[in-house]
Amino acid sequence: MGRTRRTRRRERNRQPDSTLLKVPQPIMKAPIYELADAQAVEQIHNTALDLLEEIGIDFIDDKAVEILKAHGVKVGGETGYTAYFDRDMVMEYVAKAPSIYKQQARNSERNVMIGGRYACFAPVYGPPFVRDRDRGRREATLEDFTNFVKLVYQMPYLHSSGGTLMEPMDEPNHTRHLDMLYAHIKYSDKPFMGSVTSAANAQDSAEICKLLLGDRYAETACMTSLINVSSPRRYDDRMLGALMVYAREMQGMIISPFLISGAMGPVSVAGTAIQAHMEVLSGVAFAQMVQAGAPCIYGVFNASIDLKSGAPVFGSAEAAATTYVSGQMARHVGLPYRSAGNFASSKVADTQAAYESVMAMTPGILANANFVLHAAGWLEGGLASGYEKLVLDHEALAYHCRFMEGLDMSDNGLALDALREVAPGGHHLGTAHTMANYRTAFVRSDMFDYNSYEQWLEEGEVTAEQQANKKWKQMLKDYEAPALDPAIDEAIQAYMTKRKSEIEPEY
Amino acid sequence: MGRTRRTRRRERNRQPDSTLLKVPQPIMKAPIYELADAQAVEQIHNTALDLLEEIGIDFIDDKAVEILKAHGVKVGGETGYTAYFDRDMVMEYVAKAPSIYKQQARNSERNVMIGGRYACFAPVYGPPFVRDRDRGRREATLEDFTNFVKLVYQMPYLHSSGGTLMEPMDEPNHTRHLDMLYAHIKYSDKPFMGSVTSAANAQDSAEICKLLLGDRYAETACMTSLINVSSPRRYDDRMLGALMVYAREMQGMIISPFLISGAMGPVSVAGTAIQAHMEVLSGVAFAQMVQAGAPCIYGVFNASIDLKSGAPVFGSAEAAATTYVSGQMARHVGLPYRSAGNFASSKVADTQAAYESVMAMTPGILANANFVLHAAGWLEGGLASGYEKLVLDHEALAYHCRFMEGLDMSDNGLALDALREVAPGGHHLGTAHTMANYRTAFVRSDMFDYNSYEQWLEEGEVTAEQQANKKWKQMLKDYEAPALDPAIDEAIQAYMTKRKSEIEPEY
Repeated sequence: MGRTRRTRRRERNRQPDSTLLKVPQPIMKAPIYELADAQAVEQIHNTALDLLEEIGIDFIDDKAVEILKAHGVKVGGETGYTAYFDRDMVMEYVAKAPSIYKQQARNSERNVMIGGRYACFAPVYGPPFVRDRDRGRREATLEDFTNFVKLVYQMPYLHSSGGTLMEPMDEPNHTRHLDMLYAHIKYSDKPFMGSVTSAANAQDSAEICKLLLGDRYAETACMTSLINVSSPRRYDDRMLGALMVYAREMQGMIISPFLISGAMGPVSVAGTAIQAHMEVLSGVAFAQMVQAGAPCIYGVFNASIDLKSGAPVFGSAEAAATTYVSGQMARHVGLPYRSAGNFASSKVADTQAAYESVMAMTPGILANANFVLHAAGWLEGGLASGYEKLVLDHEALAYHCRFMEGLDMSDNGLALDALREVAPGGHHLGTAHTMANYRTAFVRSDMFDYNSYEQWLEEGEVTAEQQANKKWKQMLKDYEAPALDPAIDEAIQAYMTKRKSEIEPEY
Repeated sequence: MGRTRRTRRRERNRQPDSTLLKVPQPIMKAPIYELADAQAVEQIHNTALDLLEEIGIDFIDDKAVEILKAHGVKVGGETGYTAYFDRDMVMEYVAKAPSIYKQQARNSERNVMIGGRYACFAPVYGPPFVRDRDRGRREATLEDFTNFVKLVYQMPYLHSSGGTLMEPMDEPNHTRHLDMLYAHIKYSDKPFMGSVTSAANAQDSAEICKLLLGDRYAETACMTSLINVSSPRRYDDRMLGALMVYAREMQGMIISPFLISGAMGPVSVAGTAIQAHMEVLSGVAFAQMVQAGAPCIYGVFNASIDLKSGAPVFGSAEAAATTYVSGQMARHVGLPYRSAGNFASSKVADTQAAYESVMAMTPGILANANFVLHAAGWLEGGLASGYEKLVLDHEALAYHCRFMEGLDMSDNGLALDALREVAPGGHHLGTAHTMANYRTAFVRSDMFDYNSYEQWLEEGEVTAEQQANKKWKQMLKDYEAPALDPAIDEAIQAYMTKRKSEIEPEY
């Protein structure tokens, strides 16, 4: 850690206004925006519970069905896997999940709180491709994956190192979860997400965390992992396998309907919110049947379908509305909320990408999403992770964190002395109040251009994307890994070697 | 009008999803976001009234001082022009201004409501430069100005044709207000803004409107014009001259503090809001002394200063907060509200510009700004109007208008039939509900790219800015002017010729 601290000090000296500093996890002190009125919230809630009784939801896993039946859930229907939940039972089990939990990191300074008024931002998750300005779009590799871990490690407004930052396609499919986990552990000390592609992979994630944390493992969750619902109304065996492992291990789970309205959900906002509510509540109830008290997040991934091309559209007004309403539904049932992200349909980090991203992200802030996956680096509807996009989105996160601080009505905020000091037509630049506050008064991007046109011209008409390209390259040069106990490192590597020799590829 | 209607029909046939259709002026049906609590609103209000009594505000115009004195305002101080307003008197006069008014256009279908829950979007105002991808950044000309009028005319989410879309630098400074007015009148039938550069220019604007509207002129305001406060705490003679003309003519006035926090106002949000409140209330009170009932808008133009370079920063978290709070202050005193805009510091319509723009514009929507100037086309901190930026910002306005519609909790919104119809793991694309709603379910951009990566590649990797470049060129080709009565046209031209021979240039 000594070398890293020294490096950071050097950077700070070089860039006095750098955002590459440690900042506390943001807490939403501003009011939360509520789109639905109290009656609408009740109606969505009750309708979802009606439908869970009436039409139910599929749990396509024999072990899961066994657990559901053992807890008195009626399972059957056309598929034989449809679970019909009694409304009181759903709420009884959902109430067992904590409304807030701590996720620990190997560096306890990086621990995060998930729930309450906290927000935790995590980078892009899942794309098979990666893009940068120099090499264009290509299949992602483990080197790209590692680069992203290193970049995110240096980004103070990303509180989680994330999970599948991209699929490292140069590693075999059946063992790459181990390589991804190792990269998060070795090259960052931030909290991260576990593998969810099977029960075995989830168990690997847990075992590696036990090696990493030792006795601390039992204290509180050290992973928050993404359990996607195969919307509409279906949990598949892979996700249920992972869910059951994480529940037993008392690890955080984002129970997350994957809703492209018009495809996996109705084209309307209220209809989408009802379906999400059904899917989340049944999944959380099931997790609590597996292990009462296991941390669950109310997750909603939402975009609109482009009814012309069939492609998902991000940053839509309708998805914004769903983000607000679903946040209200999560608070209504007392669960932490996951939603939003710097989503974009655009192929590159261009104007379109930015419009889409801010429009998708801002509702997450005002809805007080407690966990925001894809908060930086998402391109092309989730098919590509972008180096420049990662850097650019991170700039915007700084802005959101500042907004969350709310309105300062202290004497310093009211600034009466400054108002009295400056004569009509005068200037506030030199006031005592400005002098006392200038370091912290405004969040400022080091990367965005505020120079005069002439200076900008002279410096080569650099666009934001070009600037971002320079920035991530410099960050990779500046990177120094956080120290990891060599004995722990060795133990984890030994576990990985053993598992790589054991796991059979699936065909 | 016949030819224009036919043309529109042709366009509609060519582009079935085109946004180039007539859409109603948006009404904010979603809740308004309130950042300040009731106590904070009271405190800002009372503090501003305290300061208007204690430190006052300058009205640098002898005629204005005469009017203030005649209404019992104490004027004096160090400059001799400082007006000290009694708090009860301020509120007594502010109460005479309407909380909502109609602004008529020559085509009454284009009339707009200013106030209440309505929003009216107007394009960029004021830059001396213009930019497009082909010719770069250069001094604006009357041809560029006219092009912008033609483009805005075809943009359904811009409800006002605006005012000084840019300064036509190829026209003499002392007469170009006439050319700008004529372009708005000849090439558009939307409502517009009058000249504010002097009392005489304001009077020219009024006289031309009388020729345009005849008897209708007296019915309701036909201009909403921008009266900038020379913040901090100063109204200059030019703006006061224009204000007095417009007040007497019962035309709409945006009384608008120009607040770069850290320069023209304190570096804090609450301090900035207090100063804005002082400046607006005194200006509105003065306007009501000139003519009771003259329509006044509570205006707040706000950005943060970059305390490193001295440049204004747009889309900041602090400006967003000010936008929310000042909206509350406007409603507190019962005035229509002007704020926000698609502001950007960026020189080009790039990623930075888009981040900044959405971050500056969204608070205006959620704060229910009733009039949004600079809603499209602003670049470079207001130094340049951008052709591509105009087109791109307009896409985002469609999104905001949809969001303002609020949450649909009707049976169609709840979509219970669709939820019941689709089996677990099924698809909503083909449901009766989707079929019934697909035309209007989502706002879709015709310009943004939602194609597959492969298709995008094949079509030449077109970025949003390139797409926008194509679009405005096509729009200029497609443009057909709305018919204008030749007798009226002639009368206005004759007035302009006469005035151009009369007005003396200033040196």
